[in-house]
Amino acid sequence: MILENLIAGQKKAAGHQTIQGVNPVSKEKLSEHFHVAVPSEIEEAAEAAHNAWKSFRFSSGEKRATFLEAIAEEIEACGDKLVERAIQESGLPGGRIRGERGRTCGQLRLFAELVREGSWVQARIDEAIPDRKPLPRADIRKALEAIGPVAVFGASNFPLAFSTAGGDTASAFAAGCPVIVKGHPSHPGTHALVSEAIARAVEKSELPKGVFSAVHGGIPASQALVTHPRIKAVGFTGSLQGGKALIELASKRPEPIPVYAEMGSVNPLFILPSALKDDISKLATTLANSVNLGAGQFCTNPGLMVFQKSPELDVLLEELSSAFLGLNPQTMLNEGIYKHFKHTKSQILSEASVTTIEAQDEEESWNGYPAIGRVDASDFIQNDTLHQEVFGPFTLAIICENQEEMKAVAESIEGQLTGTVMGSEQEIEAARGLVSIIAEKVGRIIFNGVPTGVEVSHAMHHSGPFPASSNGMYTSVGTDAILRYARPVCYQNAPDSILPGSLKRSNPLGIWRKFNGELTKK
Amino acid sequence: MILENLIAGQKKAAGHQTIQGVNPVSKEKLSEHFHVAVPSEIEEAAEAAHNAWKSFRFSSGEKRATFLEAIAEEIEACGDKLVERAIQESGLPGGRIRGERGRTCGQLRLFAELVREGSWVQARIDEAIPDRKPLPRADIRKALEAIGPVAVFGASNFPLAFSTAGGDTASAFAAGCPVIVKGHPSHPGTHALVSEAIARAVEKSELPKGVFSAVHGGIPASQALVTHPRIKAVGFTGSLQGGKALIELASKRPEPIPVYAEMGSVNPLFILPSALKDDISKLATTLANSVNLGAGQFCTNPGLMVFQKSPELDVLLEELSSAFLGLNPQTMLNEGIYKHFKHTKSQILSEASVTTIEAQDEEESWNGYPAIGRVDASDFIQNDTLHQEVFGPFTLAIICENQEEMKAVAESIEGQLTGTVMGSEQEIEAARGLVSIIAEKVGRIIFNGVPTGVEVSHAMHHSGPFPASSNGMYTSVGTDAILRYARPVCYQNAPDSILPGSLKRSNPLGIWRKFNGELTKK
Repeated sequence: MILENLIAGQKKAAGHQTIQGVNPVSKEKLSEHFHVAVPSEIEEAAEAAHNAWKSFRFSSGEKRATFLEAIAEEIEACGDKLVERAIQESGLPGGRIRGERGRTCGQLRLFAELVREGSWVQARIDEAIPDRKPLPRADIRKALEAIGPVAVFGASNFPLAFSTAGGDTASAFAAGCPVIVKGHPSHPGTHALVSEAIARAVEKSELPKGVFSAVHGGIPASQALVTHPRIKAVGFTGSLQGGKALIELASKRPEPIPVYAEMGSVNPLFILPSALKDDISKLATTLANSVNLGAGQFCTNPGLMVFQKSPELDVLLEELSSAFLGLNPQTMLNEGIYKHFKHTKSQILSEASVTTIEAQDEEESWNGYPAIGRVDASDFIQNDTLHQEVFGPFTLAIICENQEEMKAVAESIEGQLTGTVMGSEQEIEAARGLVSIIAEKVGRIIFNGVPTGVEVSHAMHHSGPFPASSNGMYTSVGTDAILRYARPVCYQNAPDSILPGSLKRSNPLGIWRKFNGELTKK
Repeated sequence: MILENLIAGQKKAAGHQTIQGVNPVSKEKLSEHFHVAVPSEIEEAAEAAHNAWKSFRFSSGEKRATFLEAIAEEIEACGDKLVERAIQESGLPGGRIRGERGRTCGQLRLFAELVREGSWVQARIDEAIPDRKPLPRADIRKALEAIGPVAVFGASNFPLAFSTAGGDTASAFAAGCPVIVKGHPSHPGTHALVSEAIARAVEKSELPKGVFSAVHGGIPASQALVTHPRIKAVGFTGSLQGGKALIELASKRPEPIPVYAEMGSVNPLFILPSALKDDISKLATTLANSVNLGAGQFCTNPGLMVFQKSPELDVLLEELSSAFLGLNPQTMLNEGIYKHFKHTKSQILSEASVTTIEAQDEEESWNGYPAIGRVDASDFIQNDTLHQEVFGPFTLAIICENQEEMKAVAESIEGQLTGTVMGSEQEIEAARGLVSIIAEKVGRIIFNGVPTGVEVSHAMHHSGPFPASSNGMYTSVGTDAILRYARPVCYQNAPDSILPGSLKRSNPLGIWRKFNGELTKK
């Protein structure tokens, strides 16, 4: 595993500062020292990315598809070495890491399929009408083209699927954008191994080396990346605080650029009375397990559960209480996340209006000890402290007098990645008013399921109104994630030889195009 | 014509401040005093818009199409009264205003057609795979839904097509968003007349009155609008300074919202030597007329013309000189624009490196007197003053030693709405490197034409990298303008009865949908 930064295929270690991974289970530092990038290395990576973009943006869908597939193959070829390193650096169990590797390679291959087919560029063609009165119409065509070099920030909670070769990188490459990834400081070794795999794929695919660079670092490296004039977009998954800092930096550039930041979310569940008519014990187990999945370190973790008062609710809360006690605490990703979880959890549980239903004892490890609190809706609505995200295995049960109060709770929450409604079909239909308030606030609305689990597919929308994400129009998961890194370029009366393949008159790529207003492969 | 603000169908004039139109030809104030909106009126309009949105966002495409067509009919029914008022307030000729009215009604009808057909919502459906291993796939569906109430700012240079019922309003209504328009202070009467037409269409279409409000005002009203929590997006066409102020306001809100600002542009023309081989005199006339069209008050006005040294160029510059002398100066839109034009024009012409080729004499009117300057490429590249937009009939001829220098000029410019290349097909092909640098910088690239004239169609992209626009991904002209005001909402395992028509299992709207990855009307 290389300990340097990887700048356009070259190992670079001009600086003297280094970082080390920490095994969160043993709390011990891992032996390797990784070199933090200095500004001249960021500069070099950005210039190389810009130069690579000049040809990469015109590469064929087939070429990019083969490249994405080669990355997946190279990641798989890393074998257990990569899995073990990711386990060491994240404390996540092996099954989870293997699953995440499958997801990572699967999403690389899904983007390969998307760009090989080619219709994602949303080609629109309006043919010339030379004899139109009072003025002729010119020939006008547009399609999406790569936006330029993209900076990607690895996420703490997904060392593979939202990091070095994760969804941001895969979608940017698919669009034709070079990528510079700053690995998350918690897993520098995993970052190094995946970076080497990508570099091998670049070589195998005979692409310019500047298509990919990988750096280590903290805030200064992040700042240098986001403010570099050659960088044209940013992909980030992380905290609200981190996302806001990047957004502010990007907006103050002479040329502001988009930051696609997927940030905090409390993912409320609205549990209608009919949902408590069936197996209450099973429901309690499902809810508790969803809260504790991956030590609650998912952006879609259900942090609020909104109920209506009923005799069945008392039973459910009893059952939830035992279910929480029965949960198996898991090691959290790093010391910072562990401490922040402990702090925000106790902050909420110590509010006067909140009753602790159940909280497990703490001990001297970085385990996330599950807890559940309870509060009346009227207290919740007026107390901003209770609206914040607790990143970890925590949830707050909100008790409403009636459905009107459930609506008031829904009205009071900020933008969310997800919202969930549980109940019988009949009751959900009758609660249409509540459902549409929830839909206003979220990117995805789930019925009779849990929000954890984000499918990588065409219809997925993993985003939501601020502060869930910086831009609720764009998803960071699923094939539409590619749309973040491409912009329409319009050609008027262009000679056919100049047009990209997607817009040429004979449609040589055989893609779907909106032709004089009609979708066709003509 | 009403002199009050029009808040959800009600006349309101709580404030005491008023504004008057000014006829720029006579420099005389028009008699009517229009009431400026106070914060409580903005508040009322925003709340009414939010409430209207609760049903308007679920209205059918057919309902919205009929509404858009009713607006067009009501505008046409205003007859000469509207045309005359717009002439009085803008100084634009009658033919131009009539053409603009046609464009305005045409674009309302084009959006009607788009939403009646319905496929614009980009529905994507991934069906459940209950027996998938290791985990089943849920049923996941998404489509675009109206983002919420939109604030629109009327533009000075298009009193109809980019103002009260212009492209921003038409596309927001089409998406299902209520609209609050602040008219441009230069044409309050035109704003009042069109607002009344829209209000009649709201009534005829039996929509909630809050779907539309119209206010008069200056900076305080703009601030109140952009910072109101119920407003979810902003449409603006105007100066870079104005756009930046709105963007900053919107980004500092507790919930930042998108501002779609179409701002400055100098729209460079790159004229290759072969373009000077044909009728030089005709080319000179074409160029001069494009610069002087509408007194140069178009966002697509060609403010830079980049040439390569040649004997033919000397002839062209001679011809351009006479063509500029022969141009007919036109009244500018208002005193502010006139003064700013005079100031920036003389600022550029007084730079040491710039030679004035031709500039018409000034006199005591608000006429835009055309001027053309000349500068060597090397001087242009290093002088930021010469890169600024001069809003009015002005252009700067940039003389390059060779095509490499043309590329350097292209590299030096900021984001643009348009870039133009003139030359033989053979020479354009050979200049592919130059063409791709231009394409990096612009939203639309025109071949052998002039950039003035922006078709309202499916393939139009009227936008560009910053500072041409705040968000180069979205167009403000053409059917894709609707995409600014809608965001994807994803439904997981939703009962059919809860789904919007676009996502129901039977496809009752008969629209194109991406179904398990394949486009189909199934």
